[in-house]
Amino acid sequence: MKKFFLILGIVPLFLNAQNQSSFEKDKKIIQGFFNEALTQKTAYEDLRYLCKKIGHRLSGSEGAAKAVQWTSKRLKEHGADEVWLQEVMVPNWKRGTKEIARIIGGKNLTICALGNSVGTPFEGITAEVIEVHRLTQLDSLGRDKIQGKIVFYNRPMDPTFINTFHAYGGCVDQRSQGASEASKYGAKGVIVRSMTLSLDNFPHTGSVNYQPNIPQIPAAAISTLDANYLSEQLKKNLKLQIFWKQECKMMPDTLSHNVIAEIKGSEFPNEIILVGGHLDSWDKGEGAHDDGAGCVQAMEVIYLFKKLGIQPKRTIRCVLFMNEENGMKGALKYEEEATKNGEKHIACIESDRGGFTPKGFQIEGGYSKEEIIRKWYKLLEPFDLYKIIEGYGGVDISPFRKHKDVLLIGLEPDSQRYFDYHHADTDVFEAVHPRELELGSASLATLVYLLSEYGISLR
Amino acid sequence: MKKFFLILGIVPLFLNAQNQSSFEKDKKIIQGFFNEALTQKTAYEDLRYLCKKIGHRLSGSEGAAKAVQWTSKRLKEHGADEVWLQEVMVPNWKRGTKEIARIIGGKNLTICALGNSVGTPFEGITAEVIEVHRLTQLDSLGRDKIQGKIVFYNRPMDPTFINTFHAYGGCVDQRSQGASEASKYGAKGVIVRSMTLSLDNFPHTGSVNYQPNIPQIPAAAISTLDANYLSEQLKKNLKLQIFWKQECKMMPDTLSHNVIAEIKGSEFPNEIILVGGHLDSWDKGEGAHDDGAGCVQAMEVIYLFKKLGIQPKRTIRCVLFMNEENGMKGALKYEEEATKNGEKHIACIESDRGGFTPKGFQIEGGYSKEEIIRKWYKLLEPFDLYKIIEGYGGVDISPFRKHKDVLLIGLEPDSQRYFDYHHADTDVFEAVHPRELELGSASLATLVYLLSEYGISLR
Repeated sequence: MKKFFLILGIVPLFLNAQNQSSFEKDKKIIQGFFNEALTQKTAYEDLRYLCKKIGHRLSGSEGAAKAVQWTSKRLKEHGADEVWLQEVMVPNWKRGTKEIARIIGGKNLTICALGNSVGTPFEGITAEVIEVHRLTQLDSLGRDKIQGKIVFYNRPMDPTFINTFHAYGGCVDQRSQGASEASKYGAKGVIVRSMTLSLDNFPHTGSVNYQPNIPQIPAAAISTLDANYLSEQLKKNLKLQIFWKQECKMMPDTLSHNVIAEIKGSEFPNEIILVGGHLDSWDKGEGAHDDGAGCVQAMEVIYLFKKLGIQPKRTIRCVLFMNEENGMKGALKYEEEATKNGEKHIACIESDRGGFTPKGFQIEGGYSKEEIIRKWYKLLEPFDLYKIIEGYGGVDISPFRKHKDVLLIGLEPDSQRYFDYHHADTDVFEAVHPRELELGSASLATLVYLLSEYGISLR
Repeated sequence: MKKFFLILGIVPLFLNAQNQSSFEKDKKIIQGFFNEALTQKTAYEDLRYLCKKIGHRLSGSEGAAKAVQWTSKRLKEHGADEVWLQEVMVPNWKRGTKEIARIIGGKNLTICALGNSVGTPFEGITAEVIEVHRLTQLDSLGRDKIQGKIVFYNRPMDPTFINTFHAYGGCVDQRSQGASEASKYGAKGVIVRSMTLSLDNFPHTGSVNYQPNIPQIPAAAISTLDANYLSEQLKKNLKLQIFWKQECKMMPDTLSHNVIAEIKGSEFPNEIILVGGHLDSWDKGEGAHDDGAGCVQAMEVIYLFKKLGIQPKRTIRCVLFMNEENGMKGALKYEEEATKNGEKHIACIESDRGGFTPKGFQIEGGYSKEEIIRKWYKLLEPFDLYKIIEGYGGVDISPFRKHKDVLLIGLEPDSQRYFDYHHADTDVFEAVHPRELELGSASLATLVYLLSEYGISLR
């Protein structure tokens, strides 16, 4: 019941904070954002370019470098007062030639290396396979049953979560931690069921995190259909062997950039509202939903303010972070520099959950912080932004968590289709619906506008 | 602000109405619906059969007859206490061979006849074209400029509406009324821009309503891309002519059926909660979103109660209406019989807006009626059913509007993609996402359950 009482509690605040004429003005401006976004589809056309002309943007790749140049040029065209690049050293992982896996005496398996993984030996790995569903199973199996084998993590995502990110969160330990955990027991490598709720033939990559001082063993994702097939085959033949080869390797760190664009606030220029996504992507598909969508939406926030001639009272900063996927170096660098320069961020908003129809916003830090957004409910509701809950902001703004006064906000789009595309060859421009994407841009602009007008005080 | 105060007003009612233990029981049952739907995907598999084994289900077609038989068999398998067919005479419109249209001396145009339309003369129509954007333009143009020509209605759907149904509502007069209005001024026929926000090469059909005592002239839909092309060509050459031929015609009415299945209530068997969709579809695509989705969702409500062993206190009736698309005969018949038999429907819930992620429910009749649903907000919110608003129930339950005590409710799914598929060849099984569809089934079951437990009183 807590929520109802809190909603009520803020109604008088809202009425006090804004008289009818400022309410009508805000409503008109917000309607303007939606009209412009849904009619001109600037983010959608930017996404087309990013996906179709540039393509994937793995940290350290040619695509990432091109994307830095093109988005900074584009942000100038959108009218930003200032656009600059922030240098950051990023990991430089290369996949190499296409990975191979097959059951000895049987069929090929659809796999791809997990990001940051080491390769197999040049001659590949031929080994028996042991299927597990939980990391803790390794302890009970012990070195006897694991040493020299490939550990096959096959716990599926739980379909009963409404928000598919919760299902992902309940599974991703296999991918991120599985290699080092199996290595402790002498495994030769790990193959992990793809993190998706769809049954298809696409392996979904993602980062593996090696623990220090544990031998690094290769890790790959296997498509859900082939994970099911392999599991069936193992039921018939426990001695089944796989041949597996991948050439991927980590190269020395390389120079890359965060892209930053700003509209200076007219009344409180030192209060910064950040809106952003991450410019890097995996090297599968085109990084359309993850996170081309978030980038072009954040870019469109700049466009919308400038196109509609809205001068914000506080400074709006669009940040396209580099290297979210396999290192978070851009995010760490950005916060480090901001702190060093004594910049005051009042709110950081991230869009990194796909370009689907927005439901609302997740706010970190409990009800007292949610209320700041909730007081604008009557302005958000006509645009179907009904869901204002305590939740998670996003990876790239998470370094700001240590600054207790910064509001961390994540745009929450519908999550049902996200993991069909996530980190896979299916994450292409065509998988993004123009209206769904544009509703996200306008929703971000709306929140940025209200924060820029009223700050983060409840008074 | 009205909404906030009303929300608050009902909190104590909710707390009074349900003690903690019944709240926990309800929560568990609702979670059970979602778990079962998202895991077993019964509606999705039913939709696969309906679309892929039966196909389109235009009133009077072989597909419609097969669908009546198969869904009644399936509802028995789902465990309904009783399943029966209700006879209803329906229009029997036939499209005939594929329609032809081309610009004389130019390219072919992608068109299809509008439903219920008459055909062209056997030799086709060759005529000049006059483009209009509003029905009222005809009055100012007058008979001089219209007689003997084809009127080309080309007003696009307005992309700035958040809910695309509102954009549809603002355009559909061209399709439904355009032929008779143009006929009054002597037009030979009308060609109408497809009712969709996407730019593609698929004509979207839909019904045309001829006014009595006005000569019936043929009507067709043209794809949005070809509508744009034709408009461009007309700018260059006002004398441009089109050749157009379609063979469609209305045959004598034919016998068909509504499909009805019931679970008898244990405490108030005479209080009926209806949940339904329409079984007929257009003869384009497979009628997947419109309205195979609504049918299989309503069928799954029966399945979910029986599978989970939940005995409702009030009677649940799943109704698959025949002939929503071009006559509404099934809906009219159902209400007529219900009234004649003195049946007491307390609520009618319709799903006919596509199998997309549900946002909530629209309730007809103003706040006093919305409150009945809103008091369960705390049980709906965990399943992202945030949007409980005054709105529109649906076409097939609209005959119950005259009974003031019946609650009319429409499931509201996300609407962004609906008109990409609506009444077109693109409305196929593959366009429906399993999780989005199943969330709708479970949402319907949830509301049906709460209504069956607590009725429609606010006390």
